[in-house]
Amino acid sequence: MNQQYPSVLLEKAVSEFSRLPGIGRKTAMRLVLHLLRQEPSAVDSFGNSIIQLRHEVKYCRVCHNISDTEVCQLCANPRRDASTVCVVENIRDVMAIEATGQYRGLYHVLGGVISPMDGTGPGDLQIDSLVERVKEGGVQEVIFALSPTMEGDTTNFYISRKLADTTVKLSVIARGISIGDELEYTDEVTLGRSIINRIAFNGNV
Amino acid sequence: MNQQYPSVLLEKAVSEFSRLPGIGRKTAMRLVLHLLRQEPSAVDSFGNSIIQLRHEVKYCRVCHNISDTEVCQLCANPRRDASTVCVVENIRDVMAIEATGQYRGLYHVLGGVISPMDGTGPGDLQIDSLVERVKEGGVQEVIFALSPTMEGDTTNFYISRKLADTTVKLSVIARGISIGDELEYTDEVTLGRSIINRIAFNGNV
Repeated sequence: MNQQYPSVLLEKAVSEFSRLPGIGRKTAMRLVLHLLRQEPSAVDSFGNSIIQLRHEVKYCRVCHNISDTEVCQLCANPRRDASTVCVVENIRDVMAIEATGQYRGLYHVLGGVISPMDGTGPGDLQIDSLVERVKEGGVQEVIFALSPTMEGDTTNFYISRKLADTTVKLSVIARGISIGDELEYTDEVTLGRSIINRIAFNGNV
Repeated sequence: MNQQYPSVLLEKAVSEFSRLPGIGRKTAMRLVLHLLRQEPSAVDSFGNSIIQLRHEVKYCRVCHNISDTEVCQLCANPRRDASTVCVVENIRDVMAIEATGQYRGLYHVLGGVISPMDGTGPGDLQIDSLVERVKEGGVQEVIFALSPTMEGDTTNFYISRKLADTTVKLSVIARGISIGDELEYTDEVTLGRSIINRIAFNGNV
């Protein structure tokens, strides 16, 4: 359907919304018309919250999780077990694991997985900083908690080789989760159990 | 799942997004993380387009459609047939009818339909301005193009009574089976009405 927008401002707002993943022009229109019915102050709050986040967001210099401070709340918490580091793809995975309440260690957010198809190589990820973090000492165990996909397994293997000359224990979360599933959509019980039942990592799973 | 946000800024942006209709917290998170990966200038553009729209939006003083000007492009267009006014619920309906390319008249956007259940009375809609518009003269036909629901029918009826002392011709868009629909799956009310309101067959439809 060739949409004729009655207003340039409207068309611009709809275009901006429809650039978001999974939002088509019809949904974008519905969202924009919803915002038009809200108070101007509420719409200011909406728009500014996103602009502010983008400009002021920080990433923890230890684990690279999103943070409001130089070092995130998890890394700065003395009650967390700093000898265990859980390697995850992104901050949604940190939140998913935190929500299980089964893990008291720290994290390392890679920012993705090695994926030649998507043009993501080891240099695009926070792998060097992980190796450095382990070599600085204090870390006794690295838990791989990447999605059980080809890319996740490749990344596990690459990191394990990088850490081969250290004495750190490597483990991988138990594969109670089916191959090909996205980690963040796994139910809490399965995900929690897969952390408890993690097994020694020897390059294969 | 009890989500622990690693950043107050992030939590605020996700909360704002999840207030939109049909957007849950998981989808909101996905959208916010997408925006975090965009250039700051692109995010500024996104946020500001919405804020600007909300503050600068105008509604045509004739038909109440969204407009960048006092009188919208449709009402200001001398090639449109100003003697015919199509009554619609909202601006999406204007766009849907415009997209058909079958209508050359003008519109009147009510801003909703009479719905006691939702607390929408005639006073909340642009009905008085429609009656005034007809009584000013020049309008020869009012076409009701509201959704064929109880609320739409009630609104049609209410407006028709308000216009009873004028000579304007009232019509309603044809209701019947959709082009391409299977007859056996059409609901009884629609099918029954399409039989009662059958039209002369001249080889075309």
